[in-house]
Amino acid sequence: MSGSVFGTIFRVSTWGESHGKAIGAVIDGCPAGLPLCEADIQPYLDRRKPGSGKYVTQRKEADEVQILSGIFDGKTTGTPISLLVYNTSQRSSDYTEIAQNYRPGHADYTFDEKYGFRDYRGGGRSSGRETTGRVAAGAIAIKILNRLGIDVCAYTRSIGPVSIHPDTFDREAITQTATGMPDKKASADAEAFLETCIKNQDSSGGVIECCVTGLPAGIGDPVFDKLDARLASAIMSIGAVKAVEIGDGIEVSSRKGSENNDAFCIKDGQVSKKTNHAGGILGGISDGSPVLLRAHIKPTPSIFQPQQTIGRDHMERTLQIKGRHDPVIVPRAVVVVESMTALTILDLMLSNMGARMDHLEKIYTK
Amino acid sequence: MSGSVFGTIFRVSTWGESHGKAIGAVIDGCPAGLPLCEADIQPYLDRRKPGSGKYVTQRKEADEVQILSGIFDGKTTGTPISLLVYNTSQRSSDYTEIAQNYRPGHADYTFDEKYGFRDYRGGGRSSGRETTGRVAAGAIAIKILNRLGIDVCAYTRSIGPVSIHPDTFDREAITQTATGMPDKKASADAEAFLETCIKNQDSSGGVIECCVTGLPAGIGDPVFDKLDARLASAIMSIGAVKAVEIGDGIEVSSRKGSENNDAFCIKDGQVSKKTNHAGGILGGISDGSPVLLRAHIKPTPSIFQPQQTIGRDHMERTLQIKGRHDPVIVPRAVVVVESMTALTILDLMLSNMGARMDHLEKIYTK
Amino acid sequence: MSGSVFGTIFRVSTWGESHGKAIGAVIDGCPAGLPLCEADIQPYLDRRKPGSGKYVTQRKEADEVQILSGIFDGKTTGTPISLLVYNTSQRSSDYTEIAQNYRPGHADYTFDEKYGFRDYRGGGRSSGRETTGRVAAGAIAIKILNRLGIDVCAYTRSIGPVSIHPDTFDREAITQTATGMPDKKASADAEAFLETCIKNQDSSGGVIECCVTGLPAGIGDPVFDKLDARLASAIMSIGAVKAVEIGDGIEVSSRKGSENNDAFCIKDGQVSKKTNHAGGILGGISDGSPVLLRAHIKPTPSIFQPQQTIGRDHMERTLQIKGRHDPVIVPRAVVVVESMTALTILDLMLSNMGARMDHLEKIYTK
Amino acid sequence: MSGSVFGTIFRVSTWGESHGKAIGAVIDGCPAGLPLCEADIQPYLDRRKPGSGKYVTQRKEADEVQILSGIFDGKTTGTPISLLVYNTSQRSSDYTEIAQNYRPGHADYTFDEKYGFRDYRGGGRSSGRETTGRVAAGAIAIKILNRLGIDVCAYTRSIGPVSIHPDTFDREAITQTATGMPDKKASADAEAFLETCIKNQDSSGGVIECCVTGLPAGIGDPVFDKLDARLASAIMSIGAVKAVEIGDGIEVSSRKGSENNDAFCIKDGQVSKKTNHAGGILGGISDGSPVLLRAHIKPTPSIFQPQQTIGRDHMERTLQIKGRHDPVIVPRAVVVVESMTALTILDLMLSNMGARMDHLEKIYTK
Repeated sequence: MSGSVFGTIFRVSTWGESHGKAIGAVIDGCPAGLPLCEADIQPYLDRRKPGSGKYVTQRKEADEVQILSGIFDGKTTGTPISLLVYNTSQRSSDYTEIAQNYRPGHADYTFDEKYGFRDYRGGGRSSGRETTGRVAAGAIAIKILNRLGIDVCAYTRSIGPVSIHPDTFDREAITQTATGMPDKKASADAEAFLETCIKNQDSSGGVIECCVTGLPAGIGDPVFDKLDARLASAIMSIGAVKAVEIGDGIEVSSRKGSENNDAFCIKDGQVSKKTNHAGGILGGISDGSPVLLRAHIKPTPSIFQPQQTIGRDHMERTLQIKGRHDPVIVPRAVVVVESMTALTILDLMLSNMGARMDHLEKIYTK
Repeated sequence: MSGSVFGTIFRVSTWGESHGKAIGAVIDGCPAGLPLCEADIQPYLDRRKPGSGKYVTQRKEADEVQILSGIFDGKTTGTPISLLVYNTSQRSSDYTEIAQNYRPGHADYTFDEKYGFRDYRGGGRSSGRETTGRVAAGAIAIKILNRLGIDVCAYTRSIGPVSIHPDTFDREAITQTATGMPDKKASADAEAFLETCIKNQDSSGGVIECCVTGLPAGIGDPVFDKLDARLASAIMSIGAVKAVEIGDGIEVSSRKGSENNDAFCIKDGQVSKKTNHAGGILGGISDGSPVLLRAHIKPTPSIFQPQQTIGRDHMERTLQIKGRHDPVIVPRAVVVVESMTALTILDLMLSNMGARMDHLEKIYTK
Repeated sequence: MSGSVFGTIFRVSTWGESHGKAIGAVIDGCPAGLPLCEADIQPYLDRRKPGSGKYVTQRKEADEVQILSGIFDGKTTGTPISLLVYNTSQRSSDYTEIAQNYRPGHADYTFDEKYGFRDYRGGGRSSGRETTGRVAAGAIAIKILNRLGIDVCAYTRSIGPVSIHPDTFDREAITQTATGMPDKKASADAEAFLETCIKNQDSSGGVIECCVTGLPAGIGDPVFDKLDARLASAIMSIGAVKAVEIGDGIEVSSRKGSENNDAFCIKDGQVSKKTNHAGGILGGISDGSPVLLRAHIKPTPSIFQPQQTIGRDHMERTLQIKGRHDPVIVPRAVVVVESMTALTILDLMLSNMGARMDHLEKIYTK
Repeated sequence: MSGSVFGTIFRVSTWGESHGKAIGAVIDGCPAGLPLCEADIQPYLDRRKPGSGKYVTQRKEADEVQILSGIFDGKTTGTPISLLVYNTSQRSSDYTEIAQNYRPGHADYTFDEKYGFRDYRGGGRSSGRETTGRVAAGAIAIKILNRLGIDVCAYTRSIGPVSIHPDTFDREAITQTATGMPDKKASADAEAFLETCIKNQDSSGGVIECCVTGLPAGIGDPVFDKLDARLASAIMSIGAVKAVEIGDGIEVSSRKGSENNDAFCIKDGQVSKKTNHAGGILGGISDGSPVLLRAHIKPTPSIFQPQQTIGRDHMERTLQIKGRHDPVIVPRAVVVVESMTALTILDLMLSNMGARMDHLEKIYTK
């Protein structure tokens, strides 16, 4: 197993290495009848592609997606959708040092231990480039969710010490700022901080938040396949994520029940809650409130300072990383968090369609 | 789907409601030849059973496990192991109020929305009692891991404002203290804090930590089935968990790369790391260092203060919860975290056996 | 893996050995709101239980099913349904010979090779008794299908040289005859034939047929999860089945296209076919015509003639089987074929609910 | 779900339509360290490609496979292998009639019922061309099995009334004859028969047999995931297959136990059986003897005689099929049967690696 298949009903198989010929994904189980073309997917890929912002790798890739199957007359047919993006900017010249040594914070050593050897060019399969397939598939999931009235929105919440202002939320800014923050002022501060990082040959971590609105109550399963459990897995599967929070997250551990419980109420004739500490999930099942999650992302491990490490020969030595590397992973990972959230929710919605006898009757009897 | 099956190769199906006749689990895929009897499992159930400590429900259950299949001549046969615990302390008299109203912080409302109605007796399937099956299965996974030289140890790290001392770690204390802390001094402080909570008709959250040592490098898969992704899912699937951290967790988001990278080194002739911020996982694959995770657990939602809520009739009203409820979930959840960690790791180890051609050859050629 | 979990959405985990304490199944994913009690299941178990007919083992088991979870107020709650049947008639005295030797046609040798040893009492997990859990789960699937207007009916088509008459179909007879044939005359002939087998210390094979009517068109998936592929797997997973046919089955290989194609037509305003050689499945998807399959069942391998074999010590010797054994497997397997057919179809129907965007909209938008 | 993912550990996702841009497969879970290049796969594709024999479609496709990922330094890396074949010979001009009408014996009607519409060009996803991805993946599975000493060999057993001679088996002939028969004499007879079919604007069915040798005992799981159950599913998932037999197959239903049991014996110091009626599988687990299966394949449904059918408008009419169509499916399906057999066996072998504690210890302890 290389763990590259995601989902039970809406199943995504991603493939491709950083410096292979191409990268892509196959989606098995997309409902038939969805209008779909490359233009629905490309904007999402553009959000994660290198060279698109100030703090992202200056690797120039067109990252142009092709749909090779599963569409007919402009609509999904229900059969697998194959998505492909050619890699166009590989430079495979300067990998000798990485080939022979283990970069701290990277998967070089663990790949060697697991598989016996590795494709060391640009991180191979554990490169951030692997997320291309996820984002392409996620774009389709988002389109389906949107048609069901569900919105998924991820954004940068903090970079290093700079957080967005709690009262500012400018959705347009997310794709306009170099940081993915929904707050131009905070973004400017974060950019200044990143300049210092670059000057110091260092990198920074940060936090991405994702909010899902319009999700009906009842999605998620009570025990192992809780909505939050599935989300945690999906988000933690993104390369640099080291913690996942749902709703108020880590704060709940130092709270009292009287502070943390969300009182149910009726608002505009609808069931609602006076607060949403729970982040829209109770007992693993959506409660109709916004679903809120946060991903804590580690600083880019590729820094330009000399680092202590060992080689494949198990000898200690000093490593000097070269090449092109983002000082922060966060901005490009925003759309990946959005994609994984959407893929998780859609797959659960599809898996949950038969939770009640009356649902079966609605589909299968006339 | 009710999401009650866990794992790919070592598959656990749990079943049972808080106030049904019994509760249990079926394990499909346990390797043959493991010596196993009820006495291997019972101590783990005793750690999570009600009535066993000062801060846990005074419900008296024997929680005696029976193995109904899969064992012959004292060893596992490779066929499914059915584990059963009869419920003996149900009181089904006083559930009218819960039947008609939605308790804040509980899954009452979401079950009704998902399934149309619910078994309201004692929380039904979303009761903490559901974890009985997980712990019984986890005990077997732990036994297997132990035989491979792998140790899994969970403990309470904090309750409300009281944390264990970083320099104290008394493993014996974990099962001796009422809190599950490996630190008798901190435990006494936490107990005092809980007394106040009880007096105030309130409850407290806390943090559980789990450490896995002896795990060989190479476990976990690079993309969606990363070791940390699978662990995050397993841990978040425990009822009250709202955040999961791996290694330094949330701290990484405010760190620099130069602070966060773990330098590889050689120690006693073995590959090692000077620090372990990563928590033993790089690129989703174990690196041979201790795997470290933390679960943030919300305060018990059942508190005895009057609370605002709505009923099934969608009318707002005040709810007064009665009965028996722990002021903190943490102590009993320690063994659940340990179990879910073990189940996740064992299943990945089994799934990863064929990661290399030389492994196949080792098993299938003479 | 012991391969004891069946299905993707409606997942059945069976467990238990012939001579263990009990035998059972857990169903994960049963839709909520189905009226269900033991009386719905018991008649199906009675059809397969030993001692119930002339040509079935004279082992006396009550085979009384208990539902331990998943039901509340007489209806399924959507959570796992645990079904248990205690074994009451084990005789574990006389297994020394089987313990030491490999019975021809049985799984003794292959279990030993796979697992290193085996539970030799009464065939252990590979006993026909294993099907108890399947039938209990199948009874629930059949009840759901019936409510959707789908009928599943299996019966004995032939035993040795005796086949049912093509023009006779007496459904009542299926449960009235000792053979499971829907034809009393043929059944009498088959019984006479079986008497000869018994006299000769021999056994006989036979054929079971199963017909599904009322299944809407559109069930099954085009490639690997074709309805017929899933049915073939389900039916072949029944112990003694050595061939599975769909529609005209093996006859198609000697036919011409002009003979084998079914012409579409309109009948009573509905799409229909003039013939049904295809057995109701085209391209792996149901076409609305009756689904028809046949299972070819080998003769009971336990015969009372002396047989050549080898022992665990790999020495050749003569084996003399004793005990109680049916001269034919077919009559008791009829309800197992019916159960596996129902489980397969229901699981595919649940998995297929989101095949079209308009289905999602029907369930998830108001 | 479109059912296009196969396998648990060695997972194959196929994609592509007959007349889309390309067709392919992604393999997740291929063990690392296998030498692999396009030249390992191409010969298998050449065996199934159109235009390659007298009785196969005169569509000219290069069917040149590209490996887009998962290989480094000439060996598999353990990450997903993406395989792609461009479609080069689509003629999408003349599909109006098929677009509007349902061809008997094809999946046109069932696709429309399932998905609401269909890609009607050349059969879309239900075209035989879909098997390209299977064969490409199968070639890799076969290479792995070969390295473990396991041989998989499929061939045509009969076409219409012409069968191979039981005493003749010329393995070379399989790829030399136009029919895939291992018997040049029989093949010549079958070719004469097919000439008559063509002259009569008709088509013929046939039988493919597959034999696996060198498979160790112990592969397959006792209950639902029996080796024969999995094989039956894999083989029945091939478009035109209507029956699957294991070992003596349908003959067992008219046999007596004394005839059908295979006596164990010792031969050359090894466990063996005097006969192999069981086809190398007992209780769902391989017994070390050759595994033998047969697939019964229906006649090509596309015949050039006028046929009665209905249109999308549900009006009855006469259909006259044009274009290029094989008079028999069998020869090109031989390599598909071989591929599906190999994929099934390899996936079970990988899933079964942890069946025993001593296997775990062999891989995970030093």
